[in-house]
Amino acid sequence: MENFNIILASKSPRRKELLGNIVPNFILKTKDVEEIYPKTLAVKEVAAYLAKLKADAFTEDLKPNDIVITSDTTVVLGKTIYGKPKDRQDAIEIIQALSGKMHEVITGVCLKNIYKEEVFSCTTKVFFKTLSLEEIEYYVNRFKPYDKAGAYAIQEWIGFIGIEKIEGDYNNIVGLPLQALHTKLTQFCNSLLKA
Amino acid sequence: MENFNIILASKSPRRKELLGNIVPNFILKTKDVEEIYPKTLAVKEVAAYLAKLKADAFTEDLKPNDIVITSDTTVVLGKTIYGKPKDRQDAIEIIQALSGKMHEVITGVCLKNIYKEEVFSCTTKVFFKTLSLEEIEYYVNRFKPYDKAGAYAIQEWIGFIGIEKIEGDYNNIVGLPLQALHTKLTQFCNSLLKA
Repeated sequence: MENFNIILASKSPRRKELLGNIVPNFILKTKDVEEIYPKTLAVKEVAAYLAKLKADAFTEDLKPNDIVITSDTTVVLGKTIYGKPKDRQDAIEIIQALSGKMHEVITGVCLKNIYKEEVFSCTTKVFFKTLSLEEIEYYVNRFKPYDKAGAYAIQEWIGFIGIEKIEGDYNNIVGLPLQALHTKLTQFCNSLLKA
Repeated sequence: MENFNIILASKSPRRKELLGNIVPNFILKTKDVEEIYPKTLAVKEVAAYLAKLKADAFTEDLKPNDIVITSDTTVVLGKTIYGKPKDRQDAIEIIQALSGKMHEVITGVCLKNIYKEEVFSCTTKVFFKTLSLEEIEYYVNRFKPYDKAGAYAIQEWIGFIGIEKIEGDYNNIVGLPLQALHTKLTQFCNSLLKA
């Protein structure tokens, strides 16, 4: 990894902090990409599709030693993707939809340099207890989760009191599948060094 | 909860921070208890047994409004309980034993006041990838996990790069099963208010 210039293409302070735990040195660089995906795409493939779309925006700019990491996180319940809430009422309704059910948090990741590109995604199942309206309103009023896909963060109050169980990588829910990313990024770097 | 004087009987800064996420006000008070359990006890019952033992040490001191929370976390692989490592070599050997396998983190909790006592435990499964000796030595040298049961913390480097999956409450691995604790403590307080 130390032979490459790692670029994290994310505006999220959470992702920056997460990546810092497994990659000692990297820089931040973002490009605005319209997050549009084909209507026919299976909901579970959207995160990986958007991660690749974000990486493709870097195609012209990459230098030989650059590796850019892009990602997208979706909250999927059945056939519905829940994005960031539009407003307070929308946040309440999204959390009500997740209450008492299992949903999936899917993070798609793309690693890209001038020679190769790798896309993968990681899924973690999240099981919410049945939340009362009082609990949901307290959370939304106090934590204002308007920048969060699915209108919640696992590392905030509603995650502490409301999530009975997860199955998968915890950090994937926070924003990056660190364990898989560390493995894939190490392999990606090694294969470039051998090439 | 606001009607009671909640006491957390723990020296762990992690547990203090965890509890602060779900209980607005509490105090810390600890008593030294010899953590001895019957040899015949099933390994999965040790955490709850020790939590109760720690709570019983408070029996004489509790005032009517006090509720003390005690806990104990065990790392269980098969029929073996892994405690805090004795030294560097022991830490390496414990992590080598966990490498490539699933183990269980069991936290026992006891809620106690002068009228009643409740003991429960929460289990989270943790799946480590196969770790290299290089990874294990790097972690032990850098993070010195001598105060950690099982010689690791999920919120440190080895957790980020090494844990493929968990099944259960994440915070239970960090030190307290917050979701279950919030539910049980709320019920405990409500039942005292009704009595």
